Amino acid sequence: MTVTTPSAPHAPQPALKIALLGAGTVGSQVARILTEDAEMLAARVGARLELAGVFVRNPDGRRDYQLPRELYTTDAEALVDSADIVLELMGGIEPAKSLIERAIGNGSAVVTGNKALLAQSGSELFAAAAEAGTQLSFEASVAGAIPILRPLRDSLAGDTITRVMGIANGTTNYILDQMDTTGAAFDDALADAQELGYAEADPTADIEGHDAAAKAAILANLAFHAPFRIDEVYCEGITRITAADNEAASEAGYVIKLLAIAERITAGDGTAGAVLRVHPTLLPREHPLAAVRGAFNAVFVEAQNAGELMFYGPGAGGAPTASAVMGDTVSIARRLVRGGAGRTHTPRSVVPALPVGEARTSYMVVIRVADRPGVLAAIASAVAEHGVSIVSMRQVPLAEDDLVVEESDEAYTDEAPESLLRIITHEAKEQNLAATVATIKELDVVTEVVSVLRVEGN
Amino acid sequence: MTVTTPSAPHAPQPALKIALLGAGTVGSQVARILTEDAEMLAARVGARLELAGVFVRNPDGRRDYQLPRELYTTDAEALVDSADIVLELMGGIEPAKSLIERAIGNGSAVVTGNKALLAQSGSELFAAAAEAGTQLSFEASVAGAIPILRPLRDSLAGDTITRVMGIANGTTNYILDQMDTTGAAFDDALADAQELGYAEADPTADIEGHDAAAKAAILANLAFHAPFRIDEVYCEGITRITAADNEAASEAGYVIKLLAIAERITAGDGTAGAVLRVHPTLLPREHPLAAVRGAFNAVFVEAQNAGELMFYGPGAGGAPTASAVMGDTVSIARRLVRGGAGRTHTPRSVVPALPVGEARTSYMVVIRVADRPGVLAAIASAVAEHGVSIVSMRQVPLAEDDLVVEESDEAYTDEAPESLLRIITHEAKEQNLAATVATIKELDVVTEVVSVLRVEGN
Repeated sequence: MTVTTPSAPHAPQPALKIALLGAGTVGSQVARILTEDAEMLAARVGARLELAGVFVRNPDGRRDYQLPRELYTTDAEALVDSADIVLELMGGIEPAKSLIERAIGNGSAVVTGNKALLAQSGSELFAAAAEAGTQLSFEASVAGAIPILRPLRDSLAGDTITRVMGIANGTTNYILDQMDTTGAAFDDALADAQELGYAEADPTADIEGHDAAAKAAILANLAFHAPFRIDEVYCEGITRITAADNEAASEAGYVIKLLAIAERITAGDGTAGAVLRVHPTLLPREHPLAAVRGAFNAVFVEAQNAGELMFYGPGAGGAPTASAVMGDTVSIARRLVRGGAGRTHTPRSVVPALPVGEARTSYMVVIRVADRPGVLAAIASAVAEHGVSIVSMRQVPLAEDDLVVEESDEAYTDEAPESLLRIITHEAKEQNLAATVATIKELDVVTEVVSVLRVEGN
Repeated sequence: MTVTTPSAPHAPQPALKIALLGAGTVGSQVARILTEDAEMLAARVGARLELAGVFVRNPDGRRDYQLPRELYTTDAEALVDSADIVLELMGGIEPAKSLIERAIGNGSAVVTGNKALLAQSGSELFAAAAEAGTQLSFEASVAGAIPILRPLRDSLAGDTITRVMGIANGTTNYILDQMDTTGAAFDDALADAQELGYAEADPTADIEGHDAAAKAAILANLAFHAPFRIDEVYCEGITRITAADNEAASEAGYVIKLLAIAERITAGDGTAGAVLRVHPTLLPREHPLAAVRGAFNAVFVEAQNAGELMFYGPGAGGAPTASAVMGDTVSIARRLVRGGAGRTHTPRSVVPALPVGEARTSYMVVIRVADRPGVLAAIASAVAEHGVSIVSMRQVPLAEDDLVVEESDEAYTDEAPESLLRIITHEAKEQNLAATVATIKELDVVTEVVSVLRVEGN
């Protein structure tokens, strides 16, 4: 905490005009807080935060938090032009982007929770804000209410962050958690999540990992002081995770989480850069992220001096996300009242995004093999071929869907008895592991590669 | 994150002079970072951070990180007077306090990790800094490397924090963790911790809860935007926790943690205020704080809109704590380079510290009772007398140290068979719970009140 005298004495300050764009789940909660907590906010800022208006498509629609009719407007431009601080909570690319650019052009400060827009056009908007000498804050865009941006930018400003791993999507975490705890199949867990409102009618953006990928780009941007775009994030969703995968993972002491990972690495050719990836990941049960349940989010940070840190909290929801929006708003408002420059953006280093093939990780591979002498040897040498070494290789009980085969008669003849083999590798270059799996597929002793999952946190 | 143009263009800046007071575990790591990461720090700040000197008692002593001999000095005053930013990492009250006051008097910024000093004279030092228009930062003073102060002050600036519960002392957490996982007795776990360097030769400040109490005062100060002193913290250490307590807690689904708790409450007479308390606490096994193992720290925050947040990381250690010191240092240095006012201190509300008797909590009480009809009724009515209601009341297996009694002959006669009774109450006012226990003690059916522990997080 820092104590200083304000550059201007605390004379009664004119109110600061706030434009609210959007009155959905989050927008409504922000409207409520600005209304109900007005006194508290005025005391903390040193000036009143006055809600100038709310841009909505239908001013007569009902809202979770209802404001006087005259505060709702369909004229976004006029509203933006009237404000000192613009809160963009509409989501989507347009008209959000144009309105933010307009606000920046006016020299107004902007707070947004729009991860899709930031992951696509972040650097462009940051540059525009820097150009105009105004501020663009976005704590709400990643991990809901969890304070992560200030810790990464300020608290760790004297340290070097080497890796960030986040459970950044509550929907997929809820689904995976259900599969893990109840043994449910993916489709049932998804249906359950939809029923409880944790998943959209169209869950694609969540279950395919696109939402997590956008957050990975934003987290990497903050952790490594360099811009990254969503199309630089390797992305794999959770739709192919089966109950059998969960069983195998659990049996080996792991839990499956969808992680957004950003890490500094040095490529084979010596290039220092970062790999950004989103994929289902096996974590040891005792890893702090493994205990993050249901719709909660958490961000695990590894820094050279600080060591391992974790930030945990609600990943979504109207009030929690509104809390993050208000944190940004109050910080900006204090600065406007105090006068003086806003926080200078950290000088941007250039950190190239490297292909996922350069990442180092471990694999758990489950394969169905013929049950006869020489099989292990054949597989072990195939793995060794690619310079990958094996941590453990063991037979695992056949999952239910495999028993069908066992029940058929020939399964009991000497010709074609089969078994499942679970291989866990040491850390190796992603591309070598991929090549290893390809080679294994070709072995005649291998009937099928049942599943391939990455392992972190060992 | 916030992007703005610096108020001054990035012209080559003169170096900022850093005075380091103390070269112990943390001081040595700060010296290492300032030396080895000089380039990175200069890039982030926009000016070099130049180590002007290090105040030590013996300049010829060996340090964990050895600097050129000429950088060590015994003349603290001269060193302080030469610096733009003073890093006080000596600990203790004097000469730390006088040197900080001297630096403030010079208009220099100060970074300290000295929780004892802040918990005793914080408001005084903050006032002096405000008076002098300079900055006093102290992220390192609580929970080591865990970024907690900026999240509480800035990220949650638009929210209302209702409660903070911290595992803020790694030594006691390690000891309790050992007792929980290995069933060790307190003395053995303590000896173990001392052997591993987790506990001092004189562990009093840790095991009696004084260290946690100092942190409770600092956390409350930040969470409630009001000053608190360590002598306003109710403090109870872990020295009386027995293996039997752990057994009873575990059997009921709880784990015992030493928590530093600060919460807003309204007293019986209507006074709104805060209760600060440090004591061994039963937490449900599934509570996020329950999973915090060994020497790690974590701070659990409840806010009106954000909901439940947790910040987790190493609670001590040279490098982690140095990371927190450097975070403060870089933030201050950026501000000095940029020019303009430092962050204005949040207007201070007045939040009176209320007696612990006003707190609302639950109790687990284990009593040894005569095993005869009417006992439960007698106890139940004694509890009801004080308006306390009971969640569960059940017989628990006699712990080893009780078997002695069982083995003696008369234990098997009809006159004096005994059993242990575990009572868990609903939440009630602390003073009523205390009165309830006093009444129970007096009942002739009660041989002994074996243990009384508070329960949170239900």
